[in-house]
Amino acid sequence: MNTTITVSGMTCGHCVSSVKEELAEVPGVESVSVDLNTGGVSPVIIESTRELTSEEIAAAVEEAGYTVV
Amino acid sequence: MNTTITVSGMTCGHCVSSVKEELAEVPGVESVSVDLNTGGVSPVIIESTRELTSEEIAAAVEEAGYTVV
Repeated sequence: MNTTITVSGMTCGHCVSSVKEELAEVPGVESVSVDLNTGGVSPVIIESTRELTSEEIAAAVEEAGYTVV
Repeated sequence: MNTTITVSGMTCGHCVSSVKEELAEVPGVESVSVDLNTGGVSPVIIESTRELTSEEIAAAVEEAGYTVV
């Protein structure tokens, strides 16, 4: 299934990689794609084999140093 | 000795880390400090045991994905 969130604070490809890496470590996550809006809010689409909780998503994004908005 | 350059295109701490890492690999470089101006031009101060050529500095910065201006 797909979950779409929006994440603030990402400014470059390195930021995108950090968020992708942390989300990829959440159990059940198969792929993560990010449509970077530099300095703004960026949509992040997460494909997973199970339903993800907003808490575990937020924890992964925060681990990377960014915020779900 | 100290060499100060200005680098464009860095937007976040990840960008700074990339530039620092590449410059640290140049023989003789002892330390690198960056005063990040997000999205603008950032001064980069390189401390080294020998005189560095602008070519080797530019090559390292470009290896990181940024440009000396």
